[in-house]
Amino acid sequence: MFREKIKVLDCTVRDGGLMNNHNFDLRFVREVYKSLSEAGIDYMEIGYKNSKQLFNPKEFGKWKFCDDEDISKVIDGIKSHTKISVMVDVDRVDVDQVLLKKDSPVDMIRVATYVKDVDKAIFLTNHFADKGYETAVNIMAISRALDNELTECLQQLEKECKAKIVYIVDSFGSLYQESTEFLIKKAKSILKTKEIGIHAHNNQQLAFSNTIEAIIHDANYVDGSIFGLGRAAGNCPTELLLGFLKNPKYDIRPILDVISKEFIPLQKKIEWGYFIPYAITGILDEHPRTAIALRESDKKENYREYYESLVGEVEE
Amino acid sequence: MFREKIKVLDCTVRDGGLMNNHNFDLRFVREVYKSLSEAGIDYMEIGYKNSKQLFNPKEFGKWKFCDDEDISKVIDGIKSHTKISVMVDVDRVDVDQVLLKKDSPVDMIRVATYVKDVDKAIFLTNHFADKGYETAVNIMAISRALDNELTECLQQLEKECKAKIVYIVDSFGSLYQESTEFLIKKAKSILKTKEIGIHAHNNQQLAFSNTIEAIIHDANYVDGSIFGLGRAAGNCPTELLLGFLKNPKYDIRPILDVISKEFIPLQKKIEWGYFIPYAITGILDEHPRTAIALRESDKKENYREYYESLVGEVEE
Repeated sequence: MFREKIKVLDCTVRDGGLMNNHNFDLRFVREVYKSLSEAGIDYMEIGYKNSKQLFNPKEFGKWKFCDDEDISKVIDGIKSHTKISVMVDVDRVDVDQVLLKKDSPVDMIRVATYVKDVDKAIFLTNHFADKGYETAVNIMAISRALDNELTECLQQLEKECKAKIVYIVDSFGSLYQESTEFLIKKAKSILKTKEIGIHAHNNQQLAFSNTIEAIIHDANYVDGSIFGLGRAAGNCPTELLLGFLKNPKYDIRPILDVISKEFIPLQKKIEWGYFIPYAITGILDEHPRTAIALRESDKKENYREYYESLVGEVEE
Repeated sequence: MFREKIKVLDCTVRDGGLMNNHNFDLRFVREVYKSLSEAGIDYMEIGYKNSKQLFNPKEFGKWKFCDDEDISKVIDGIKSHTKISVMVDVDRVDVDQVLLKKDSPVDMIRVATYVKDVDKAIFLTNHFADKGYETAVNIMAISRALDNELTECLQQLEKECKAKIVYIVDSFGSLYQESTEFLIKKAKSILKTKEIGIHAHNNQQLAFSNTIEAIIHDANYVDGSIFGLGRAAGNCPTELLLGFLKNPKYDIRPILDVISKEFIPLQKKIEWGYFIPYAITGILDEHPRTAIALRESDKKENYREYYESLVGEVEE
C-alpha cells in the first residue's frame, strides 16, 4: 500500500528554532537526530545558513548559522541513514561560506523564496547544485501568490533551475484541501522534471490533512516536525505522518520516545501549537507575527480584540 | 460562495460532558448557549437523555439526563434562534420520560447507535418523530463497520426510519479524507431522501479536514465543538468551522469571547485535545478508553509502552 518515492523531511529543529532564536543545545539536537535516524526518516533539517555579517552570532543560537563543525558534533557517532538538510533564505546567505559538498556534512540545501524573488533563488540553487548538493526550492507564502506570477515562477524553475524538488509552502496555514489540490496539480502540470513537496503550517489544524492531500495528488516530498514543533501553530506532526505512511522502513516508536523525554518538558519553555490567535491568522491568511507578539503580551487571551484589530476598521 | 443548506450543530456540552460526567454548572452552560445563539449556530446539543433507573443521578451531572426543566433554566431569557438537541443512546433511554415535543424545550433528538443496533435505533427514532421532534440517527464507530452490514443498515434507515438526518460518526478519529469521501458517497448513494451529517473526532488532527471533506461530498449537517472540547482528543473546533463557512449569518466573535472567558480557564480542570495516546488510538482505529485511563495514571507520558500494549504481543 505504500509509495516508495515518498520522502519525509523532518524540520523540527529548523522551524522550531524560529521560536527560540535557534537556541537548542547540542544534547537536544543529538537526541532529535538519533530518534529520526532510528525512525528511518529520510532527511533532518537542522537550521539556516545565515551570514554572520547580517546576524550577530552572540544574539542567536548555532542553528541560525549551521557551521559544518557544529553539524558534525550532532551526527558524530550516531548510526544513521538520515541525510542532513539546511535552509537558505534569499539575500541572507554568504555563498562563499558554503563549502563543496564533498567537504561538508550537509546533503541538501533548500532555498526559501517568495515568488517575487525566484530569480535570486534560481541563482543560489544552481550555485549549490554546482557545489554538489541536493537542492530544493521552497516557495513561501504561496496562498498569497497571484496565479499568473506563480505560473511564471514555476515555468522559470522548470526551465532554469537545477533543484530536484520544489516545495509548496503554506506559510500562513491558510490553505484548505481544495486549494492544496489546486496548487499541487498546478505545480505538477508545469514542473515535469521535478518532484513536488509540501510544507504545511498547522494554524487551522490542517497541516496533516493538507500533506495527505498533497500526497494524494502526487507530491512525494513531505515535511513533518516532531510533536508539530515549529513557528507559531507549528507544522505537520511527524508522528502522524508515520502513522499514515505504510512504508515499513519507518518506525514510530523512537519518535514516541523522544516526545516523552524531550518535547513534553520543552512545552514548558516554548509555546507552539493550536492557539486561537494563530487560528485567526490562518483563517485570515495573515503572517503569524502579530499573533506571536500577542502571545508574548499580557493580552494573550484577548481574542476578540485581536480579531477586530485584523479585520476591523481600526487604524494600525 | 456559501451553501445555505449547511447546518452547524455544536455538541460542546454533550460531548465535553463525557470528560467530566456531565458536571457543567448552569452558569457555564448558559454562557455557551448565549455565545452559540449570538454566533448564529443552528443547534446546540446539551447532553443525553439517560434513564435514571440505569444511572444514579447522584453520580452524574444534570446533562446526563437533560430534564426539560433544567434545559429551560439554560435558555430562559436568552434571545436565540439556536435549536436544542439531545442525544439518546440505544438501550439507555426511558422513552416514557420523553414528553411530546409541544410540551418540551427540546427541538431535536439524535439517536446514537452501532450498525448492529440499527433496528433498535429505528424504533426509537420513529417513536420520537411521532412525538413531534426533529430526529437524526448517528452511526457510531463507522470505521469498524463491515461494508455489507453498513449497506444493509443504510438501506434500512432509508426505508424504515423517519430520521431527517443520518450522521457518519468517526468515534475513534481514525478516518482519513479518502475514507471519509468513500463513506459520505456511500451514504449519499443509499439515503436518497435524507440529509447526511458528520461527527468527527480529532485524534489525528483530522476532525476539521474530514468535516470539510464531508461538506465537499454534500454532507449538509456538521458537528463542531467550541475549542474542540469533547471526549479525549475532542471534536472539530466550531471556531474553525465558522472561519471556513462563508454564510454571513454566522459570527465568530461570540465564540472567540467564550473561549477567552470560559474555555481557557476550563483547560485547567479538564484535559482534552491533541495528546499522543489519543493520536495512537486514532492511528490504530481503537476506542480511546485505554488512552483516557493512561492520561489519568502516573504513566501518562509513557507513550512507547502504551503503544506496545496495543500493538505488541503482550497478553492483555
